[in-house]
Amino acid sequence: MSTSSSAPKAPFARLPEPPYYAVIFSSRRTPGDAGYGDMAERMVALAAQQPGFLGVESTRDADGFGITVSYWVSEEAISAWRRDAEHRTAQDQGRAQWYEHYELRVARVERAWGGP
Amino acid sequence: MSTSSSAPKAPFARLPEPPYYAVIFSSRRTPGDAGYGDMAERMVALAAQQPGFLGVESTRDADGFGITVSYWVSEEAISAWRRDAEHRTAQDQGRAQWYEHYELRVARVERAWGGP
Repeated sequence: MSTSSSAPKAPFARLPEPPYYAVIFSSRRTPGDAGYGDMAERMVALAAQQPGFLGVESTRDADGFGITVSYWVSEEAISAWRRDAEHRTAQDQGRAQWYEHYELRVARVERAWGGP
Repeated sequence: MSTSSSAPKAPFARLPEPPYYAVIFSSRRTPGDAGYGDMAERMVALAAQQPGFLGVESTRDADGFGITVSYWVSEEAISAWRRDAEHRTAQDQGRAQWYEHYELRVARVERAWGGP
């Protein structure tokens, strides 16, 4: 098990060696934008300024099903980001308007490698 | 932190309470199909038959960047699936042909919840 010899480029996150933490956020969007695109962009920019943020990977298919995985140095960093005031406003609007359904899973990354 | 009151439907995985393990596989596809679609479908069906498989969520955007997260009861179950003969053939072809780049992260899910 070795890391990739070449550093990954965007849309891949460049991460340190494990261990670190992942927030796996899967979601199905409601139809229409309704400010979602701007919010999503803003949240990525804001997350990147948080202490303990390591990186993020995100994708969404044509049916509106998406997975975003953000990476953090610790569970404490994740909890602090979850409590961020502007992020909380976005969370509220997500529940009320943007997401038909979502699942959140917080996980400790123990091994990582890349390729080819 | 509570689980969603309504059980998630596909494309969401229905998972037990944590802890369990996640394999976070992010990848950028090469252009063209070249048998990829059939293989991907077959690998999901085959994974679902493995001991310790819990579920999978997968999405890919129009630029060919995708994230698939499969969930397992243990690291041993993940290792066994990684060594599966048919899966190994697919891994080889993935490195040779289907993926420009990929990253794999194995993580222990510690908390999970859903909504709205």
